[in-house]
Amino acid sequence: MARKQPRIGVWLIGARGGLATTLVAGTRMLAHGLVPATGLLTEGPSGRSVAWAPFSSFVFGGHDIRGCSLHASAAAVAAATHCFPQDSLAAIRRDLDAVESRIVKGAVLNCGPAIRRLAEKKSVRNLLPRAMLGQFRKDLRQFRERESLDQLIVVNVASTEPPLRPAAHHRSMDALLGAVRKNTDRLRSSEIYGAAAALEADAILNFTPNEAFLTQGVREIANLRGVLYMGNDGKTGETLVKSALAPMFRYRNLQVLSWMGYNLLGDRDGEVLRDPAHKAAKVRNKDGILGRILGYTPDSLVRIDYVPSLEDNKTAWDFVHFAGFLGHRMSLQFTWAGTDSVLAAPLILDMIRMALVAKERGESGAMPQLGVFFKAPLDVAEDDLHSQFHRLERWLAAGQTR
Amino acid sequence: MARKQPRIGVWLIGARGGLATTLVAGTRMLAHGLVPATGLLTEGPSGRSVAWAPFSSFVFGGHDIRGCSLHASAAAVAAATHCFPQDSLAAIRRDLDAVESRIVKGAVLNCGPAIRRLAEKKSVRNLLPRAMLGQFRKDLRQFRERESLDQLIVVNVASTEPPLRPAAHHRSMDALLGAVRKNTDRLRSSEIYGAAAALEADAILNFTPNEAFLTQGVREIANLRGVLYMGNDGKTGETLVKSALAPMFRYRNLQVLSWMGYNLLGDRDGEVLRDPAHKAAKVRNKDGILGRILGYTPDSLVRIDYVPSLEDNKTAWDFVHFAGFLGHRMSLQFTWAGTDSVLAAPLILDMIRMALVAKERGESGAMPQLGVFFKAPLDVAEDDLHSQFHRLERWLAAGQTR
Amino acid sequence: MARKQPRIGVWLIGARGGLATTLVAGTRMLAHGLVPATGLLTEGPSGRSVAWAPFSSFVFGGHDIRGCSLHASAAAVAAATHCFPQDSLAAIRRDLDAVESRIVKGAVLNCGPAIRRLAEKKSVRNLLPRAMLGQFRKDLRQFRERESLDQLIVVNVASTEPPLRPAAHHRSMDALLGAVRKNTDRLRSSEIYGAAAALEADAILNFTPNEAFLTQGVREIANLRGVLYMGNDGKTGETLVKSALAPMFRYRNLQVLSWMGYNLLGDRDGEVLRDPAHKAAKVRNKDGILGRILGYTPDSLVRIDYVPSLEDNKTAWDFVHFAGFLGHRMSLQFTWAGTDSVLAAPLILDMIRMALVAKERGESGAMPQLGVFFKAPLDVAEDDLHSQFHRLERWLAAGQTR
Amino acid sequence: MARKQPRIGVWLIGARGGLATTLVAGTRMLAHGLVPATGLLTEGPSGRSVAWAPFSSFVFGGHDIRGCSLHASAAAVAAATHCFPQDSLAAIRRDLDAVESRIVKGAVLNCGPAIRRLAEKKSVRNLLPRAMLGQFRKDLRQFRERESLDQLIVVNVASTEPPLRPAAHHRSMDALLGAVRKNTDRLRSSEIYGAAAALEADAILNFTPNEAFLTQGVREIANLRGVLYMGNDGKTGETLVKSALAPMFRYRNLQVLSWMGYNLLGDRDGEVLRDPAHKAAKVRNKDGILGRILGYTPDSLVRIDYVPSLEDNKTAWDFVHFAGFLGHRMSLQFTWAGTDSVLAAPLILDMIRMALVAKERGESGAMPQLGVFFKAPLDVAEDDLHSQFHRLERWLAAGQTR
Repeated sequence: MARKQPRIGVWLIGARGGLATTLVAGTRMLAHGLVPATGLLTEGPSGRSVAWAPFSSFVFGGHDIRGCSLHASAAAVAAATHCFPQDSLAAIRRDLDAVESRIVKGAVLNCGPAIRRLAEKKSVRNLLPRAMLGQFRKDLRQFRERESLDQLIVVNVASTEPPLRPAAHHRSMDALLGAVRKNTDRLRSSEIYGAAAALEADAILNFTPNEAFLTQGVREIANLRGVLYMGNDGKTGETLVKSALAPMFRYRNLQVLSWMGYNLLGDRDGEVLRDPAHKAAKVRNKDGILGRILGYTPDSLVRIDYVPSLEDNKTAWDFVHFAGFLGHRMSLQFTWAGTDSVLAAPLILDMIRMALVAKERGESGAMPQLGVFFKAPLDVAEDDLHSQFHRLERWLAAGQTR
Repeated sequence: MARKQPRIGVWLIGARGGLATTLVAGTRMLAHGLVPATGLLTEGPSGRSVAWAPFSSFVFGGHDIRGCSLHASAAAVAAATHCFPQDSLAAIRRDLDAVESRIVKGAVLNCGPAIRRLAEKKSVRNLLPRAMLGQFRKDLRQFRERESLDQLIVVNVASTEPPLRPAAHHRSMDALLGAVRKNTDRLRSSEIYGAAAALEADAILNFTPNEAFLTQGVREIANLRGVLYMGNDGKTGETLVKSALAPMFRYRNLQVLSWMGYNLLGDRDGEVLRDPAHKAAKVRNKDGILGRILGYTPDSLVRIDYVPSLEDNKTAWDFVHFAGFLGHRMSLQFTWAGTDSVLAAPLILDMIRMALVAKERGESGAMPQLGVFFKAPLDVAEDDLHSQFHRLERWLAAGQTR
Repeated sequence: MARKQPRIGVWLIGARGGLATTLVAGTRMLAHGLVPATGLLTEGPSGRSVAWAPFSSFVFGGHDIRGCSLHASAAAVAAATHCFPQDSLAAIRRDLDAVESRIVKGAVLNCGPAIRRLAEKKSVRNLLPRAMLGQFRKDLRQFRERESLDQLIVVNVASTEPPLRPAAHHRSMDALLGAVRKNTDRLRSSEIYGAAAALEADAILNFTPNEAFLTQGVREIANLRGVLYMGNDGKTGETLVKSALAPMFRYRNLQVLSWMGYNLLGDRDGEVLRDPAHKAAKVRNKDGILGRILGYTPDSLVRIDYVPSLEDNKTAWDFVHFAGFLGHRMSLQFTWAGTDSVLAAPLILDMIRMALVAKERGESGAMPQLGVFFKAPLDVAEDDLHSQFHRLERWLAAGQTR
Repeated sequence: MARKQPRIGVWLIGARGGLATTLVAGTRMLAHGLVPATGLLTEGPSGRSVAWAPFSSFVFGGHDIRGCSLHASAAAVAAATHCFPQDSLAAIRRDLDAVESRIVKGAVLNCGPAIRRLAEKKSVRNLLPRAMLGQFRKDLRQFRERESLDQLIVVNVASTEPPLRPAAHHRSMDALLGAVRKNTDRLRSSEIYGAAAALEADAILNFTPNEAFLTQGVREIANLRGVLYMGNDGKTGETLVKSALAPMFRYRNLQVLSWMGYNLLGDRDGEVLRDPAHKAAKVRNKDGILGRILGYTPDSLVRIDYVPSLEDNKTAWDFVHFAGFLGHRMSLQFTWAGTDSVLAAPLILDMIRMALVAKERGESGAMPQLGVFFKAPLDVAEDDLHSQFHRLERWLAAGQTR
């Protein structure tokens, strides 16, 4: 029996960034059949038994603080990474223009110096927290109404902010809303995005390391409203490999003595992370995983260095020094050469589809089954990639929707 | 309550080889507390709940076809790999001499040209199959009696033979014993070792890729006698990493386009594998794993090149080319620098201990819970390291023996 | 004083191959100012004092045996390597069509199975040697006349043939021309190309390992006619790095124990080299260099493996094991990721320009100053890259032409 | 005609450090014929035509601030790097004890916090500059007299100090000696070592990056007294490879976009460099070389990270991103795994021997022919390894002493 295609709104915070651009352009190319569906778990063997929302059902919009158009951003991505097959970008030119028309001004309240430097005046709303929350909620409601959306999912793909210093207003809904009402000084725009999403959307995904977007307060609102959510910090490259490999050392009781990880990348992402304040949040998530998988803390270090010429084509080198039988020392090193946005975009598509299934299954609140996609997954005990994946597989199998 | 320490006989086929030497010397060093117990799963967190046989309970003996003494072999291992801490080898000199006195002549029937080249006249028994089986059984029985063994475990750590061409006498106990009785031409000494072990031992481990040692015929004898067994082909280095990493590509639906693996090693192992006939068996096990984990067959290649200067310090380089979102191509490469014998020896110790527990639990026949230790595990469907390990963990948890 | 721009004919044997295509398209892009002049020695600091022929002076034509058009070949190169900046290929569409009209049928006489497999009927001339020589000379003369060329340079960029087995007709002009006259069986089309070039062109470059193109016989003709020539086998990637690094070990008296080199590439080049007969010629040139630089022969190996997914983006891994002070063993490994055609094309442009200067300076015969560009340079004693480069620099300085 | 063997005194500043220990132990092993002479240029083909001082002619002594004995230091080196062949250390036990008896207390005046932390009270002389200079001169004179030395060479192999801030007393002999006389505050013990060496020795080598040891003032004294000298900062590992490889990019006009270098090492060297103040001096020398070779400054970075488990077995990874023809981007990466002291020690032996030849040839002052051994060679314009080596070869050839 034919089923009318739903309209799924995907609201992107950072809608003209490299990742959002790759996601939007890629989804439209998939909808037109211009590219293969590689890199999507939902299109692979593990996803076969589920009826996923079709690529053509997604309607994109979002906030952004930069001035360039989505199309210009896509052209820049193409020149830097060659990720779009020839002529495919031209073929979705009108699709991108349509999305562009649904991108509105963003905000940069207390989001760190490197992000403020990216902002362009014409794309930034300077509002106090209370007015800002009102505006963001209005933005989301208008998106839902004008596009006649059946579902609305908010995805944070903004740049990395400095780590969050704990404050009272992070801890509960009441404290958060109270702080907003009083236009408290230290509030970040990402918290207000988070609050707006929790108040208006059906699901929230935090692909960034920015904890402000999913504080305890925001989660309390989401839990109360039955909104689905998950974060933080997408696991796409070096950390993905690390979380796949580290268990091997545990299985064999090979003692990791040192694990040094060097990440080289250019692009806006590299530029923002170049700022020590911003880098701190990222490094913590990349490094912490190791001790949790191994059960002890080896000497370890994660560096992120800005190499403009690489653009988004991240190159990471990891060196693992370990002791085996007799205490004998040996080593493993790997070089990962991956395009970050290309690795990240399909995870978001996968998670959106899975959130829709979770909704259909009547679930609400945190989605720990999506832990495999994150560096610092909420409410998830497993850090090793394999246990995380097996958890997702069990969840997928639990409810056959086809 | 104190329990008298059991005497566990470990009979090594290839008892003076680099791996056997590392195993024997390492176990004695552990018994004397000269080295840390790294690299042993049974000594790590996963093994904590089980009362394993103490290191001092193992009594080693074996067959070998080479002339050098076990002590000379240990000195050569030390010079090549520096795996024994300073002075530790001197401290176990008498232990090695004792084991040396329990090593008897081996056989080289149809085991391939590269192995025959290693053999020395004074260490080889030239017998026809029927007499050979009698002799091997006598060797094992004498070992058990003279050393008052409580358990006898036979471990094959001989060099890699050419692949086995299927023959009628591999398929059943009757055909095997019939062929032995008739001194059939094509019988290999490894089959006769296997038959003798199945007829005399409590458990059998095949750490080599030599299928002849655990043919259907041999397994039928073992099953009938309630003998535990497992093989084939220990998973120690490049293949270990491969089986840890390949699942990651599956989880993300990243399509592996090409997986090229280059293994450089010297030593007797490298020398034997240099012979194309012998190499074939090894390559097959190293390569096959990939398709089974991924669910499709990428372009792949495994090369093993002889680099004498490396001795046993294997260096492997793997290059993985894969397509992600939009069909975009990226790569991962790793270099593994590990000492093969040092990686292999603890697995054997672990498995011996686990076989003893299996025996105590009343198990018999194949031990699929040990699949995590092998490149081509018998009766095991899982090829991915993580599923294999989880299976072992479940088995360990099933019966708490402490 | 203004000087009329000369017309320099460049006749490419293998004119629709990946390298020729990159050379032709790249030169036209340079002529139009669409790309930077990186990768060209003649455009760098070393080339500053010389007045080189401008990019717009080159007129391309050639022989080929494949059916696809030059434009289709350029599109394939673009898709595989992304080496042409966006829109640049469209901008030279007409230029490529003009060159296409100057490409004529080639020949595949005794050039090995892998090359014959590439040939398409409509693009192959089946002539006996005598008629073939006549036809090739006519092709070159027509090119010179129709295009009113001031100079004609023939460049061999065809696929790698199997090694040449020595024969009497390679050794002298008389023997060669005699063999052609008698339509001798074993003659290769590459010899006849060479003879035609020596009889008609002003300079000849052999960028391939195919010695048949510049046999003693061909060189005798060239010497007699005052034709400039140089070969063999362009040094573009792994061998380039090898010849830059190997001297370091000599300087420090670090004893190279083993040097293992693995070349992974796809494309037509990889496909042809996949054939063992064809591979042999290439491997010899790549490997021989080492002993000549070091003054002794370490264990060494060069492998070339076909990895279709890489297309022309060659990835090479070299592992160097060496002994230093006290005989202590250490290692160096490198991974080279370079696009072969992109690395090769500028060398040809550089050499063409240098040959024109050599001609202006009244030189003739072999051009050993170009040794730095070749794996097996003719009449050049130096194998180390630095000595070769210093030789070129001295030659450049010898005659200031600006 | 037999020539009486000279007695060559080698005074090491930092005489119990890893490098000094390796140098002393290695030279004694060479004198006894216990190890091969690999890694020594003077023993390779380039050194064949010169009659070098025999290994047995060297008499070692020195200053040190640490408490452990030379023998204990050698045992630690052996355990960490396995660089001494089995039993060789035992064979030179008495030789080391003899050297130990010639090691006297050192000083730590203004040498930076990380070095001060290494010092042990019983091995440190707390003197004011004036008294210190007197003491150091006396130490050297006593060494010369007691050992009846024919020549005295002082070699600085102490730990890396923080960079030197320019001061008046660095600029001339008079200013230096005046400052010493007045016990000026900011004087470093390394300046006073340098002054003492310039006043007492026949030749001075500065293997460290510590410029204080060879300031303009020190050099003025040396020049006046006809003392030979050379520095700074031995070129042993990553920088050696860099200076061998960087010219290749220049030769081909391949534009280096980024060159990132990561050095991982443990040991005292790593520990000292871990201190940012100390690291600065090292990084500057490692990084500066690139711009001077290439003729322009690419994005570049040199990091040195402390990885205790590696001990002296340095592992460095360099990533080079470059643009070739058409601006196309490609990459080269290498991993260097070398034991620093083992790489450094032979260079010192080579230079001592060469300084003796220079003396014999009547040379004095700076020895630019030794530039190939240093990261920041004094009075040497060439930065590329090859030009530096060719300069040395020309110097070697200039006077045949055999």
